[in-house]
Amino acid sequence: MIAPLAIAMGDSAGVGPEITAKAWKARELHSLAPFFAVGDIRAVEKVWDGPVTRIFSPEEAFEAFPAALPVLSVNEAGTVTPGTPDVDSARCALQSLEIAVGLASAGAAGAVVTGPVSKAQLYRIGFNYPGQTEFVAERCGVSGENAVMMLAGPTLRVVPITVHVPLAEVSHLLSQELVLAKARVTARGLLRNFGIERPRLAFAGLNPHAGESGEIGREEIDVLIPAIAQLREEGIDAVGPFAADAMFHPRARAGYDAALCPYHDQALIPIKTLHFDEGVNITLGLPIVRTSPDHGTAFGIAGRDEANPGAMIAAIRMAASAAQRRAESAAAGVL
Amino acid sequence: MIAPLAIAMGDSAGVGPEITAKAWKARELHSLAPFFAVGDIRAVEKVWDGPVTRIFSPEEAFEAFPAALPVLSVNEAGTVTPGTPDVDSARCALQSLEIAVGLASAGAAGAVVTGPVSKAQLYRIGFNYPGQTEFVAERCGVSGENAVMMLAGPTLRVVPITVHVPLAEVSHLLSQELVLAKARVTARGLLRNFGIERPRLAFAGLNPHAGESGEIGREEIDVLIPAIAQLREEGIDAVGPFAADAMFHPRARAGYDAALCPYHDQALIPIKTLHFDEGVNITLGLPIVRTSPDHGTAFGIAGRDEANPGAMIAAIRMAASAAQRRAESAAAGVL
Repeated sequence: MIAPLAIAMGDSAGVGPEITAKAWKARELHSLAPFFAVGDIRAVEKVWDGPVTRIFSPEEAFEAFPAALPVLSVNEAGTVTPGTPDVDSARCALQSLEIAVGLASAGAAGAVVTGPVSKAQLYRIGFNYPGQTEFVAERCGVSGENAVMMLAGPTLRVVPITVHVPLAEVSHLLSQELVLAKARVTARGLLRNFGIERPRLAFAGLNPHAGESGEIGREEIDVLIPAIAQLREEGIDAVGPFAADAMFHPRARAGYDAALCPYHDQALIPIKTLHFDEGVNITLGLPIVRTSPDHGTAFGIAGRDEANPGAMIAAIRMAASAAQRRAESAAAGVL
Repeated sequence: MIAPLAIAMGDSAGVGPEITAKAWKARELHSLAPFFAVGDIRAVEKVWDGPVTRIFSPEEAFEAFPAALPVLSVNEAGTVTPGTPDVDSARCALQSLEIAVGLASAGAAGAVVTGPVSKAQLYRIGFNYPGQTEFVAERCGVSGENAVMMLAGPTLRVVPITVHVPLAEVSHLLSQELVLAKARVTARGLLRNFGIERPRLAFAGLNPHAGESGEIGREEIDVLIPAIAQLREEGIDAVGPFAADAMFHPRARAGYDAALCPYHDQALIPIKTLHFDEGVNITLGLPIVRTSPDHGTAFGIAGRDEANPGAMIAAIRMAASAAQRRAESAAAGVL
């Protein structure tokens, strides 16, 4: 049995505490593996009147989980006001993340699930990473470019090759090296986390209609086609580049395990169009399992009991399944 | 009653003749308004064994339509081979288009529905427009920038602001003038063709997360926000720019009548993800009604009875509905 999962609840003033509690409430319906929350216990109590129990070490979560949401409480400072983030709610988010990652790295937690944070608030307290993913990667000793963000839903997995950069810079940033690095981590990650023996990777072209043989842009010819050829030489089942708009209807999606897209919106539009309330962000390329519900803090509805826990539940399920798979591989001597 | 619709079947070697015949077969199921095909009658007979009747003028279509597919046959030259386009199949496509547009402009056809063509083949016979849309606009006396391509499906309408250009050029091409021109035609077109009195236009940002207040690109601040403000001053209900990936889930789609997207894939990915087999391309800003099934010639399956007529049927229904609406407005003195 895997160790209990650690849920870093994110910003105390966002919807993280509420969706964590709602996920616990739905634990039997969704057969969720035992987990515990890391964060300010007051943030949970403020938005939820169900059973909560304070724990002091991860292993206590097994006994506590059936009857109450176990919380490893940190940074009970200031006043928690749902919808109003401040430096205390940000400090709590950062400490929760640090502790959850540490416990997972030490094997005391089976995986880390991270709730939504406010980057603007984190920057106020000195956080200087582009996002939680890069922070987790650094703490795991993995360089940023080798940690790959995948968004996964019930019928689609996507990887953006470039992420939070202006659209006008994408063409310059898209190099063969970058494409190869992302694709290799993705192929390996699909095996380790999803148990897909020979993952099929489909690439989207950068330009409309994948450039129409160079008529509408040359990045397909200069970058993507040679990179895909190189991946195939390495034994990775890579195909494309395809016209991005024809890649995401049901018949097309059945043909690959992950779509690799040159830029953010190409990857994020289809997954959020199809799976807005159940999209999971999973970081590939790490020694630990890390997932996250693919939505923000939603400060506007925090504390109103309106937050949908679907993505958090999906993130917990995916984390447990990946951790279980890795444990079995390790037991079988396969790493 | 509107005049019969003219269906220019497109390349004789593509799936145009087959989906036209299949649409006729489904005329009662879908309550289709009377229409006639324009193209090589042999191309229909080659791929379909249902009733076909040769007509010589549009008005004959009314009497013929209940019992057989009426065809105004043109360019019966060369040999029709489904799946193998040539200069004859391209000439037939071009003549069909020319005739259908002429009949619609003269009022003898109620609208034009255009089947798929091969641009590569058309270029061989001297066609020098980017596509059928620009040709139709020119024949109607409308400049290219005032003819707007909208893709419409049952739950979503999108307009790409730039279209078939390399992604790296989008940022330079996106000007306030262009945004304003497209938006004004879109608002007017939603009224004329869809009867939406006060259309709600939602704009996608160019950059990830709509630029995050300038952190990830400035086109939102420099171009989109001022253009949207100008549109609102003109009385057009324009909102945004929004993060494109959060605009296309069901709740978001309920909030607008059309999404205007800075570039091709931002608009085409969501519509084709959701409505791949029923997407309709409608040209706004023309004196005539023109729609088209939003797919290609599919030479690879031509002649095999595998083509799905869903998008053609949707294109015919949309054309008839828009033509009917315009006729009623004209009768009421509203133009």
